Amino acid sequence: MATFSRLVRFLARDGRTYYGDAILPRGVTDISKARQAHVVRGDIFGKHDVTEQVADIRTLLAPLAPEDVRTVRCLGLNYAAHAKESNMPIPQYPVVFYKPATALTGPLDPIPIHPLAQQHTGLDYECELVAIIGKPCVDVPEARALDHVLGYAVGNDVSHRDWQLKLGGGQWSLGKGFDGWAPFGPGIVRAADPQALAIRTRVNGNTVQESSTADMVFGVAKTIAFLSQGTTLLPGDVIFTGTPQGVGMGRNPQVWLKDGDVVEVELEGVGTCTNKVEFSPVRDAKL
Amino acid sequence: MATFSRLVRFLARDGRTYYGDAILPRGVTDISKARQAHVVRGDIFGKHDVTEQVADIRTLLAPLAPEDVRTVRCLGLNYAAHAKESNMPIPQYPVVFYKPATALTGPLDPIPIHPLAQQHTGLDYECELVAIIGKPCVDVPEARALDHVLGYAVGNDVSHRDWQLKLGGGQWSLGKGFDGWAPFGPGIVRAADPQALAIRTRVNGNTVQESSTADMVFGVAKTIAFLSQGTTLLPGDVIFTGTPQGVGMGRNPQVWLKDGDVVEVELEGVGTCTNKVEFSPVRDAKL
Repeated sequence: MATFSRLVRFLARDGRTYYGDAILPRGVTDISKARQAHVVRGDIFGKHDVTEQVADIRTLLAPLAPEDVRTVRCLGLNYAAHAKESNMPIPQYPVVFYKPATALTGPLDPIPIHPLAQQHTGLDYECELVAIIGKPCVDVPEARALDHVLGYAVGNDVSHRDWQLKLGGGQWSLGKGFDGWAPFGPGIVRAADPQALAIRTRVNGNTVQESSTADMVFGVAKTIAFLSQGTTLLPGDVIFTGTPQGVGMGRNPQVWLKDGDVVEVELEGVGTCTNKVEFSPVRDAKL
Repeated sequence: MATFSRLVRFLARDGRTYYGDAILPRGVTDISKARQAHVVRGDIFGKHDVTEQVADIRTLLAPLAPEDVRTVRCLGLNYAAHAKESNMPIPQYPVVFYKPATALTGPLDPIPIHPLAQQHTGLDYECELVAIIGKPCVDVPEARALDHVLGYAVGNDVSHRDWQLKLGGGQWSLGKGFDGWAPFGPGIVRAADPQALAIRTRVNGNTVQESSTADMVFGVAKTIAFLSQGTTLLPGDVIFTGTPQGVGMGRNPQVWLKDGDVVEVELEGVGTCTNKVEFSPVRDAKL
């Protein structure tokens, strides 16, 4: 077999970590339900093989190994209804901020909440389509932009609204960049049309965000064309493409995540990341 | 010899690329004047040796190899006089934004200006002390923060004010993140006290910024302690610590960089990066 259709990374029952091509039972579309995968060997961005070796999945991991991740870019206000609920204008150009690679975590991992983000109010979820760059590009036209995509995942752009909007001097990254604040996965899917997918969030089983990637202001192709202007995108670059309406900040009254809440973000054709909010022990804040 | 005091990376006369420990003639303190270096072998963040092998420097390169760079964080408004000239308040907490690693470039490289940033006005320089993380840390107290620094360099946080402040939806990274918009070097110095260094910028030989790192609002130790709260800093993380007053945006009348301008950023005890502004051929902008 030449290449994968549902790339996963996992800890196997044999105790080793593999890239794999997830095996889904007939009728199952959620990659997080995979229990086995064909082991993938080689360079996931280049020459690789999906082998006949089948491994049993013990735990799904973030679908990119830390050494395979480069830059994590995120878009803000990329759904009109979310811009409206945030009391912000629909942007003229993509609004770009960054997360550090250390924010990325797996589809089933807890989201650790540092004491700094337990103070003040404002812990929030954001389900997003995530595009992973597979081939380098710079100044790529929109018509060819998707040729440079390795595949798509779903992610949660975990955000602390006070640190994002009030205490960070207007720059959003600080309140979105803590360790483990970007769960993504459960796998990376190659073939999906990125602009026709249902996307939703559930908190403790209740649906709180429900939309379609058709509603994105800047679709994936336009986003990549824009971002690549004078800026080289590299294999392993990860792009969170913005969240639809229904975040806790936009609700009336506002609703914030609490210790122990379970957040599921789901994207059609990809599956679900299920992450539990875990407040870390309170220590002295340093600043 | 156990470790380096002035880490450089360079293309040697033998056509190969090395890490090295720069050899400076007596009385010379600017690393960009080095013509030879002792070759450094091994892991610059871990076990390595400064060998007796002396190589002739043909060209100094960015002092970290691309594969050794992790996340590039930058501070805004970290000198009171610069916050004032920007009509912004002195921040209560460090203001953090990011550049992609592809923005990093060498101390003598040209700064390419993409057609997108030739439109509108606002191309500007920002000399900054750059701290490079050498050992991982998370929740490190200020008193021990500097133990995690590999060393210091000088950098230019090249900025396009329209894309940074007006067209980017208020998020600064887009107007600061183009390829080659973060020259740094000329080397990485281990021993300097980071809060007592003269720092300046010259454009075409005229001094336009002149200050001391003593004037930073948040010093390097405090910055690292703050950034490491709930966020793991890794070897190869690069921190641009903000610029003092005198940027083109803050002058009356405002002054913008032009094609062919030569910008020198200089830090006491480290040396000078000398970078020529080079407008790329104009093509159609894509968005």
